[in-house]
Amino acid sequence: MPKSLARELERDEGHYPFELWDRFTDAGFHGLGIDEEYGGLGGDVLMQSIFAREVSRSLAGLLLVWMPTSFAGAKSIGSYGTPEQKRDFLPKIAAGDCRVSIGFTEPGGGTDVLGALRTFAERTEGGWIINGEKTWCTGAHVADYILLLARTDKNVEKRHHGVTLFFLPAKSRGVSTRLLPKLGMRSIGSCSVTLQDVFVPDHLVLGEPGCAWYMLLPTLNNERILVGAQCLGTIDAVLEDAVDYAKTRKAFGRPIGQFQAIQHYIADIATWQQQTELMLHYTAWLQSNNMPCGQQANMLKMMASEAVGRAADLGIQILGGMGYSAETDMQRYWRDHRILRISPISNEMVRNSIAESFGLPRSF
Amino acid sequence: MPKSLARELERDEGHYPFELWDRFTDAGFHGLGIDEEYGGLGGDVLMQSIFAREVSRSLAGLLLVWMPTSFAGAKSIGSYGTPEQKRDFLPKIAAGDCRVSIGFTEPGGGTDVLGALRTFAERTEGGWIINGEKTWCTGAHVADYILLLARTDKNVEKRHHGVTLFFLPAKSRGVSTRLLPKLGMRSIGSCSVTLQDVFVPDHLVLGEPGCAWYMLLPTLNNERILVGAQCLGTIDAVLEDAVDYAKTRKAFGRPIGQFQAIQHYIADIATWQQQTELMLHYTAWLQSNNMPCGQQANMLKMMASEAVGRAADLGIQILGGMGYSAETDMQRYWRDHRILRISPISNEMVRNSIAESFGLPRSF
Amino acid sequence: MPKSLARELERDEGHYPFELWDRFTDAGFHGLGIDEEYGGLGGDVLMQSIFAREVSRSLAGLLLVWMPTSFAGAKSIGSYGTPEQKRDFLPKIAAGDCRVSIGFTEPGGGTDVLGALRTFAERTEGGWIINGEKTWCTGAHVADYILLLARTDKNVEKRHHGVTLFFLPAKSRGVSTRLLPKLGMRSIGSCSVTLQDVFVPDHLVLGEPGCAWYMLLPTLNNERILVGAQCLGTIDAVLEDAVDYAKTRKAFGRPIGQFQAIQHYIADIATWQQQTELMLHYTAWLQSNNMPCGQQANMLKMMASEAVGRAADLGIQILGGMGYSAETDMQRYWRDHRILRISPISNEMVRNSIAESFGLPRSF
Amino acid sequence: MPKSLARELERDEGHYPFELWDRFTDAGFHGLGIDEEYGGLGGDVLMQSIFAREVSRSLAGLLLVWMPTSFAGAKSIGSYGTPEQKRDFLPKIAAGDCRVSIGFTEPGGGTDVLGALRTFAERTEGGWIINGEKTWCTGAHVADYILLLARTDKNVEKRHHGVTLFFLPAKSRGVSTRLLPKLGMRSIGSCSVTLQDVFVPDHLVLGEPGCAWYMLLPTLNNERILVGAQCLGTIDAVLEDAVDYAKTRKAFGRPIGQFQAIQHYIADIATWQQQTELMLHYTAWLQSNNMPCGQQANMLKMMASEAVGRAADLGIQILGGMGYSAETDMQRYWRDHRILRISPISNEMVRNSIAESFGLPRSF
Repeated sequence: MPKSLARELERDEGHYPFELWDRFTDAGFHGLGIDEEYGGLGGDVLMQSIFAREVSRSLAGLLLVWMPTSFAGAKSIGSYGTPEQKRDFLPKIAAGDCRVSIGFTEPGGGTDVLGALRTFAERTEGGWIINGEKTWCTGAHVADYILLLARTDKNVEKRHHGVTLFFLPAKSRGVSTRLLPKLGMRSIGSCSVTLQDVFVPDHLVLGEPGCAWYMLLPTLNNERILVGAQCLGTIDAVLEDAVDYAKTRKAFGRPIGQFQAIQHYIADIATWQQQTELMLHYTAWLQSNNMPCGQQANMLKMMASEAVGRAADLGIQILGGMGYSAETDMQRYWRDHRILRISPISNEMVRNSIAESFGLPRSF
Repeated sequence: MPKSLARELERDEGHYPFELWDRFTDAGFHGLGIDEEYGGLGGDVLMQSIFAREVSRSLAGLLLVWMPTSFAGAKSIGSYGTPEQKRDFLPKIAAGDCRVSIGFTEPGGGTDVLGALRTFAERTEGGWIINGEKTWCTGAHVADYILLLARTDKNVEKRHHGVTLFFLPAKSRGVSTRLLPKLGMRSIGSCSVTLQDVFVPDHLVLGEPGCAWYMLLPTLNNERILVGAQCLGTIDAVLEDAVDYAKTRKAFGRPIGQFQAIQHYIADIATWQQQTELMLHYTAWLQSNNMPCGQQANMLKMMASEAVGRAADLGIQILGGMGYSAETDMQRYWRDHRILRISPISNEMVRNSIAESFGLPRSF
Repeated sequence: MPKSLARELERDEGHYPFELWDRFTDAGFHGLGIDEEYGGLGGDVLMQSIFAREVSRSLAGLLLVWMPTSFAGAKSIGSYGTPEQKRDFLPKIAAGDCRVSIGFTEPGGGTDVLGALRTFAERTEGGWIINGEKTWCTGAHVADYILLLARTDKNVEKRHHGVTLFFLPAKSRGVSTRLLPKLGMRSIGSCSVTLQDVFVPDHLVLGEPGCAWYMLLPTLNNERILVGAQCLGTIDAVLEDAVDYAKTRKAFGRPIGQFQAIQHYIADIATWQQQTELMLHYTAWLQSNNMPCGQQANMLKMMASEAVGRAADLGIQILGGMGYSAETDMQRYWRDHRILRISPISNEMVRNSIAESFGLPRSF
Repeated sequence: MPKSLARELERDEGHYPFELWDRFTDAGFHGLGIDEEYGGLGGDVLMQSIFAREVSRSLAGLLLVWMPTSFAGAKSIGSYGTPEQKRDFLPKIAAGDCRVSIGFTEPGGGTDVLGALRTFAERTEGGWIINGEKTWCTGAHVADYILLLARTDKNVEKRHHGVTLFFLPAKSRGVSTRLLPKLGMRSIGSCSVTLQDVFVPDHLVLGEPGCAWYMLLPTLNNERILVGAQCLGTIDAVLEDAVDYAKTRKAFGRPIGQFQAIQHYIADIATWQQQTELMLHYTAWLQSNNMPCGQQANMLKMMASEAVGRAADLGIQILGGMGYSAETDMQRYWRDHRILRISPISNEMVRNSIAESFGLPRSF
């Protein structure tokens, strides 16, 4: 898929790129990571990483047409769904018939998810009644389902107890969504989602009620690895576009790629690309072999999100005025990935966590 | 003027903020730097800097409602206009009745302005016929005049000879403008301007024909100083917004402003603010006393544009998801000022020039 | 004084440069900042800054031949000494007959001086008996006096109460010093000082017993300003040496100063020099006019110590192998000033303090 | 080998650590990389890397007791020696009976080795007469042999033709060495070597006369990989020492390792360690499988040397005053490795070379 398509789609910032979703469907991409018995293509996190990198290389943030459904749908149901849930949802997802959004974060806090968790699901006959508000739900306005985190028990010793995951039909009565204006990945859309007395039947609870936190932790590594792959793909794109421009653009009678300052920028980008690639492959390999990879997934996400930011920033500098123009992609790379130093976990929290892994006491 | 107004105006990205222009008119701001005898407020570059800083603190990139007219209009005509030109234009500018855009850069190159200069003005009876293409003309689509740089003599020994400045009526026959999509300062608009057999009468030549380069150099310092002031004002805004948020946003039971990582970000922003302020006042003081300030204006522009970028970047990190949201200004600060590391001169060229000031040979 | 002298003196790392002390005496430098009625040259902190910068430009860390005596002797006695103490000590200091060292830090902590303070002075007839251990006492092995901080009251509500300053004769019975091996400023010598039942008579108490902390705070700004001047002087030296080398050293048939990477290093050093100079002059001007300058002195010390470190690091890179060689000064600049990001206050504490100045709660 | 030993040896800066050489001999380390048929331990570059990392972790720059002999002796003779040369020298090297130094660089230039090459070997009966001067010859004052690069033909089209490698007995008549004072790795010693009419017999020419440059290139990758390993080992040491200190040192009633600023420093060091490890293993694996690895070896050397510098710098900051004291190793880590951003190739040249690999024209 050419970069010009992404630029075109992004220009129409207000609309979700359904056309792109459909192209992914036709190519079978939504089935990546879903077992063949459910109509998927199979493939572990290493293969998904390679895919995410390649897509991101052409489309940058538009990878998000694929990722939330893959993570919150295919991966989550595949990991902790019941046999019935798998049978019900995985084939639909693989066929491109089911878009999934994520509802974890609340207005009160993203980094401290549990501290900010006010959304409450109350037991009722045959299901639950949910009230609350979620934010930063990617593509919730066009989603069929939202993977929703809610408190189901307030009388718990530790705050990570008593929380439950729901596979909430996005068009349920009582659900309303509002698009949030934002810096990047604009055509994808992020939403505020309000839940007012929303009923969810029991069979749409994912995993054991009250135990969501334990379930989530392993799948979060998956998300961080794919974020790493996304950043790497965009570094690929930055490098490609920057080298191209440096070869053809002239100033003072020479291609600007002959100026040493420009060369050193390019050398740095290429080095970050190499570092990120090694870290991605290493971490994805660990996870696909079921080895512990929490620290590595954190490091990968942190270093990749910082590298892509620096790379796109230098890329703009290399392209000069054209880097600021929306007629090239550089500014889009720069905008789209800024969120990844903050989400799905802030790089500050990653650093805290790495330090604690050496036995240092908690700093916050 | 509250920040919310700027946010509102920026939301309507496709339209020039005429309302803001009019408010500036009512306040007399367009007369800043224009002598009282022409209906202006007077004021040297130091006073203009203080004004530009304050506006930028509230409006960030929307300062550009004021700056091009002030620089390409009031300053340029005030510096090298004839008595008639001053009498004709300065009162109109002071009264807010004349918007001015700049046409220096061409598609072939921004840093190497002279190397890329293809626009040519041919002598004809009573005036000149101009053909060519300009780019990055701020607000040209709503301008009354464009300060245009064109070659008027091709047989020159040095390429900075034989170039001339025109005060071109923007609605002349043969002038067409096209808005360029871009990363920041979106509502202001930047244009590509095509000139096809455009006639300009002699009395709209500014200064001596063929000698534009010598005239331009001193006024460029003025522009760089105001760019420094603009960056500083936005650093003020970043700091204000970041401190506010750090005091009120809570995570893990505490205001996030208690976390040491956040505190150190804020301390760095405050330090850059102090550094930029000192450099701005020093440089503006030099210029307002007619002392040489080329090196200082360059340094100021370089360090201020880099400082505001780093500050806004940390600001986004402090605000987290809200920093990525267009419901706060942080992302706008970050976007708007990215161009200032490239324009009006790239920071790479500034570094070359500083190094050469120590007697080192040209590197490019 | 030529740089070669400093290099020579530093080569003999084990010995204090008495010769340099004597040259300073002959020039009257020890009298800087001492009132003329006591035989000094007068001069406020601005003049001292200019002096410290110039000395540091030639001698880098060897400025420490002058600074402790100036700060802990001339400044401290001048600020809170009795008329008798002034009459006794200031003329001797001005005449170069009295070297002074500082005894604040203890092995348990430098940043948390009060938390680590174990040295205790007990009331006895006609004076005090002191026991404890001090560290990082600059030049204590060759000092006549040590400005010593000791606790004199353990029953206090706040730990900054009940501490007292003594002007301790360094050769008193019970005082023993040991030289500490260290990274930079080697010929100057830093000592561990052990105090065992050391008697100090009452007339050598400085200021009100128990109130040392309140006295100290204002004079600390003085120290930080001079540290800023020291860093700036060394930035001057770095820039000078780097430009010289870049002009004369050849590679690939050209002076290396023509390579753009080298030029940009030099441009950055020159910019840091300008920033530091402005901050130094501003802060020294504030203090010499008795205006509050605590925040500015902190910022100056922080930014100057970081700038000189980066500058010397780039300087080494420009000089290549010769920058690593002790036959040039660059490596000495780099080593000598590394301590100034730690002392007299760590830059981390400075950042904490700047952040708190905006109303943020204490992070530690 | 404990770090205290290294500290002890380094304290006696003027003397080569023969004791350490002997310990390496006893352990068989000098035989690493030498085939078993010559009395060595075998082992490819991957194994050597692991060894170099571990040694460097305890001894930092004292790894240089081993490396020059391994590279200039074992590797060079093993790669391009004749069967006789291998039989003569490899067993001696493996047995610790032959120390080797390197003589490539000349006073006129390190980065531009060929441009600065003045040392000339003139054909004579049965051998060559060499005149010239070399610098930065590690351990030449205690070496048995020097791997010496000299021009043997001045009438060549390209300057990398006509250069020859000699395995010069270091005690030959006409060879004189002088120790150079320097920033780090002091006890190892670096020398200036003057060659006055030095005779070298034919059988001590290494490889084809006139073709040294082609031979050298592949072995340079080996050196860069081992430099990467050395940097990584020291990063290990920095991290270990910093974490230890952060756990035990107290300030304000807490271990300093609880302060978030300190934690983030540690997290960064740990991330650089992980990045360097992956790059080292990847590059060593490429080379040990005879795959092209020039770009990777360059990148590794660049990023590792920069990472170790930043790591040790933060390490000093964490240790505070104790980091400046020579009673801990941090300042030694910082000093020792500063040269590795310059040598064996400057990181600026690495960046040039990476950029050129994308097809950009030479910038110098």
